Amino acid sequence: MVKITLPDGSIREFENAVTPLEVAKSISEGLARNTISAVVNGTQVEVSTTIDADATVQLLTWNDDLGKKAFWHSSAHLLAQAILDYYPAAKLTIGPAIENGFYYDVDFGDETLSEKDFEKIEKKMLENAKKNSTFSLYPVSKADALKEYADNPYKTELISNLEDGQITFCSHDNFTDLCRGGHLPSTGIVKAVKVLNAAGAYWRGDEKNPQLTRVYGISFPKQKDLTEYMERLEEAKRRDHRKLGKELGIFAFSDKVGAGLPLWLPKGAALRKKLENFLSDAQKKAGYEFVISPHIGSKELYVTSGHWDKYGADSFQPIKTPNEGEEFMLKPMNCPHHCEIYKVGQWSYRDLPKRFAEFGTVYRYEQSGELHGLTRVRGFTQDDAHLFCTPDQLMTEFEGVIDLVMYVFRNLGFEDFVTQVSLRDPENREKYIGSDENWEKAENAIITAAKNKGLNTIVEYGEAAFYGPKLDFMVKDALGRKWQLGTIQVDYNLPERFDLTYIGSDGEKHRPVMIHRAPFGSMERFIAILLENTAGDFPLWLAPDQFIILPISEKYLEYSKKVSHLLENDDISGLIDDRNEKTGKKIRDAEINKYPFMLIVGENEEQSGTVSVRRRGEGDLGTMTIEEFTAYFKNASALNAEFGA
Amino acid sequence: MVKITLPDGSIREFENAVTPLEVAKSISEGLARNTISAVVNGTQVEVSTTIDADATVQLLTWNDDLGKKAFWHSSAHLLAQAILDYYPAAKLTIGPAIENGFYYDVDFGDETLSEKDFEKIEKKMLENAKKNSTFSLYPVSKADALKEYADNPYKTELISNLEDGQITFCSHDNFTDLCRGGHLPSTGIVKAVKVLNAAGAYWRGDEKNPQLTRVYGISFPKQKDLTEYMERLEEAKRRDHRKLGKELGIFAFSDKVGAGLPLWLPKGAALRKKLENFLSDAQKKAGYEFVISPHIGSKELYVTSGHWDKYGADSFQPIKTPNEGEEFMLKPMNCPHHCEIYKVGQWSYRDLPKRFAEFGTVYRYEQSGELHGLTRVRGFTQDDAHLFCTPDQLMTEFEGVIDLVMYVFRNLGFEDFVTQVSLRDPENREKYIGSDENWEKAENAIITAAKNKGLNTIVEYGEAAFYGPKLDFMVKDALGRKWQLGTIQVDYNLPERFDLTYIGSDGEKHRPVMIHRAPFGSMERFIAILLENTAGDFPLWLAPDQFIILPISEKYLEYSKKVSHLLENDDISGLIDDRNEKTGKKIRDAEINKYPFMLIVGENEEQSGTVSVRRRGEGDLGTMTIEEFTAYFKNASALNAEFGA
Repeated sequence: MVKITLPDGSIREFENAVTPLEVAKSISEGLARNTISAVVNGTQVEVSTTIDADATVQLLTWNDDLGKKAFWHSSAHLLAQAILDYYPAAKLTIGPAIENGFYYDVDFGDETLSEKDFEKIEKKMLENAKKNSTFSLYPVSKADALKEYADNPYKTELISNLEDGQITFCSHDNFTDLCRGGHLPSTGIVKAVKVLNAAGAYWRGDEKNPQLTRVYGISFPKQKDLTEYMERLEEAKRRDHRKLGKELGIFAFSDKVGAGLPLWLPKGAALRKKLENFLSDAQKKAGYEFVISPHIGSKELYVTSGHWDKYGADSFQPIKTPNEGEEFMLKPMNCPHHCEIYKVGQWSYRDLPKRFAEFGTVYRYEQSGELHGLTRVRGFTQDDAHLFCTPDQLMTEFEGVIDLVMYVFRNLGFEDFVTQVSLRDPENREKYIGSDENWEKAENAIITAAKNKGLNTIVEYGEAAFYGPKLDFMVKDALGRKWQLGTIQVDYNLPERFDLTYIGSDGEKHRPVMIHRAPFGSMERFIAILLENTAGDFPLWLAPDQFIILPISEKYLEYSKKVSHLLENDDISGLIDDRNEKTGKKIRDAEINKYPFMLIVGENEEQSGTVSVRRRGEGDLGTMTIEEFTAYFKNASALNAEFGA
Repeated sequence: MVKITLPDGSIREFENAVTPLEVAKSISEGLARNTISAVVNGTQVEVSTTIDADATVQLLTWNDDLGKKAFWHSSAHLLAQAILDYYPAAKLTIGPAIENGFYYDVDFGDETLSEKDFEKIEKKMLENAKKNSTFSLYPVSKADALKEYADNPYKTELISNLEDGQITFCSHDNFTDLCRGGHLPSTGIVKAVKVLNAAGAYWRGDEKNPQLTRVYGISFPKQKDLTEYMERLEEAKRRDHRKLGKELGIFAFSDKVGAGLPLWLPKGAALRKKLENFLSDAQKKAGYEFVISPHIGSKELYVTSGHWDKYGADSFQPIKTPNEGEEFMLKPMNCPHHCEIYKVGQWSYRDLPKRFAEFGTVYRYEQSGELHGLTRVRGFTQDDAHLFCTPDQLMTEFEGVIDLVMYVFRNLGFEDFVTQVSLRDPENREKYIGSDENWEKAENAIITAAKNKGLNTIVEYGEAAFYGPKLDFMVKDALGRKWQLGTIQVDYNLPERFDLTYIGSDGEKHRPVMIHRAPFGSMERFIAILLENTAGDFPLWLAPDQFIILPISEKYLEYSKKVSHLLENDDISGLIDDRNEKTGKKIRDAEINKYPFMLIVGENEEQSGTVSVRRRGEGDLGTMTIEEFTAYFKNASALNAEFGA
């Protein structure tokens, strides 16, 4: 008798050994048709794997992340098979599934693979897939495995590091590969494939090793899925914030300043300023106080905070002084500085919570190869704040921060988000700092606050930091991509390390709890995501240039300047297209450059003190006086309700 | 026949050799009475010095800076004489005049000088001064000088470094000192003296040398002058920005963060923000564009700018990366970054001027002993901007910057200022970078702009930097102290080094001219001066807390909060005194804490939706509705005219 426990806790009993596919069939034929992989006792296996003892079983379809993993891992075998069909001398290395698709690292020897070869490989892959061969996994002794790959130094190296008895090969059709398993039942399920790219990659990522060719691909169970994916990919390229950032004059990099250190151009700085003002206003209403701290701190500060021990060696190295032997660090976070600001005062429980906010620029070393536009940089500005409160105030403070984060998301078009609560591992409570009582208080506070605020929440045990539980916000962008934005993190550690205190109602000293939070995360990353999500078509209130005035000839330039000046005085920002171009061309260019409002001025407008208003995507709105347009604009650009109102 | 040329160009002829005092007598007896020193052919000498050939002569009175210098230098002799009277074993070293008074560095051996000894020294100085002895300067051979000071290693060291034939001693009464000259005619002119302080100082400022006692003093020709000076000194102590900064919660320092790295507390950050917004608004109207650049730059950037060669060794040392061998520097100024931002675009003469502004925080190493509150720090934020223009645009741009600086001063209570134009040394034109034509253009532009704007200007030749002429603003504060604020600096050097170009109307590449300017100088130094000038009693628009609500009992706390909320919504900031204290006490405390408006609320006010308004220094203004108070406040706090209006 074999007892199978399913994820919902239900149990199915079978008289004999059983396979995941048979478990699926026992539930429904439909499920069995869609089941393409399974997890048995925590390990991903084939649907044909024999289960001969009691086990937990999760059945996976294409809709599961692990189902996709089996699909793409299997497709990597198809890719390798097709490559060997055309390049029999190529040496295979490894070929994993990745977040979107899969790759195979191949040593092509003297041959090269280029874009024009992709189509023939795709064709061959589909041709082979159609044979609908079964993937079969079987054990091989280490000696046999080494013999099989005698002429492949990469596989030989891999096998050498494996234990005899743990080695398996996987065969389908005429192709065999060293493999741990986790495949589709058969190749026929793969109906659409695309070879995306071929790029250099060092064996095991080490530049001292030979360079291989990493061939990227993706595959789907339906041609339609592939078509949609390729469209999304094109759209993502069009929305790439590095491309848009350049086109819209948001930011730039300079080799002389250094990689990963963005220069914010006037439009980018204006955008940042608007975002900062937006958040500052909301934070002021929420009772935050702004502080300013330097971008360096003595090494001692980070010894106290513990960052030196933990990250010192991998960070930008200490800044020495010409004499006096002092050492400073570029600040990698603002919290130690804010702890020192807290310590300037003597606080009683009546003074708490103290909420110190700062748009604090921090610097963290990243390998130059890891840098990517504004999403992975070496210097960035956190919309940081640290709340110091009593343990009893935690829940109210958490609710306040959730309100703030949701207010931010609502006004910036991130309507679709989920939250993750990260709690202690209940099995390993000793690895966390802080009393059990305080942890329970904090965990309950987060869960209750999230519930009170109606958040759609996933709870993950064991994902808390050693110093406290946290709540993360994951938003989905216009292309369905997930981004982590907004973190709220409880901290019992720094108040301890910095010996922070407040005087309680009992007249005794107590430790405050600290909350770290950043609704944007960082200005850099947030603006990158905002660019990609909006494709540069920002919410009206945020657009760096909200109008463009199009004088129909240079005769109306003076009047254009007057209009511009009046609007700027009303905090509506924009510019004048003073080029010697036809109005039609100016309108077309303005549409491309995403100016929300085009204000056309000529003889009539100047005479009557008006502008002819076009709104991007909407067309002609007719003639308005400057006051009428200002009122119209203010209404159209209003924030989504006042914060706290 | 001796021809004497006076500063006004007039010439007086004397039959024989003459002394400055005789020259003074030849003009008037009154002048002769007041003449206490003189400059002959550029060297400061005694009024009894014989002039036996044609010479230029400047006669000095107490009202001249150099007259004060002779006065205080001579007083240092009196101090040393009095010290030796009481401490015959003390060894003298050097005793110069300083900006305010003089000091003498003395090795007291086993004895010490403490504050209780000051009075007896002052008395002895005056007693000796009254003898009205003449200061007489005479040459001494090196051998004799060394013999005289055989038991004084300090003087021996000084003498050893002098050339034989150049050594003079100065005697008065029973006292003689190694001295270069520049004394009063006689001691009797010194009528009032004060020993101010005694502090440790290393011989020649080197901590490896023996520690001496630096005795500070000041002296005057009238007792009344001393009394006034001591009152100003007391007032300056009361206004010390370090004291006020702490009392008002503006800033703090922390040993763990590091010396010279200010932490801006909420009120200080709010103050900075208001100043930044004030200047930002004016700059926006003046056509500036904001940019943001990182606080580090690759070492290469500073090699290009020339800063590395010039200052690298004395700066915060390079920041190394854990691998990849990169080196970054903390940025000591924003200009190289702004040059790189200029280079992101391709500019034509029609695009210029480009005016890039940034509140840019920079870091410069200073010895810890040199640090002083916010006026001498290691990290500070410049209200920086760089204007890139054609040579022909220089004058207009200069005028624009002068307007901006004057607008700033006018709104911040610095009405009393002079400007200094620093030009090339006409004798040494080869030591300056840039063509003669451009220099003349720039120098004329500055002089004409300053004249057009009606500035009270001093022209100094040879004071220009090697890369361009400049205009500095010197303000006088409430105590009559001079501060340098606001610099406008032309730069031909960086555009060259960074190879900056624009396309001229001729279609060819040309070099733009660069202007550096900072109306505040730095936020830190400016706020320090503002604190000392206003004694914390800021212009109303700038006060961090503009009102304080005084509920007459806790019953009116809710109404107080409502009032506070309404005012904050109108951008009027303040707080509530919710202490359980009598209203009289609350009013007194509010006066001390310099809250401009006190809003008293009780039963009547709550009923009628009003507040009882008291203005600091003015008293009761009667009852107003919130709207009335808001209107009254807006009017009272309005800026001194719109910029550019």
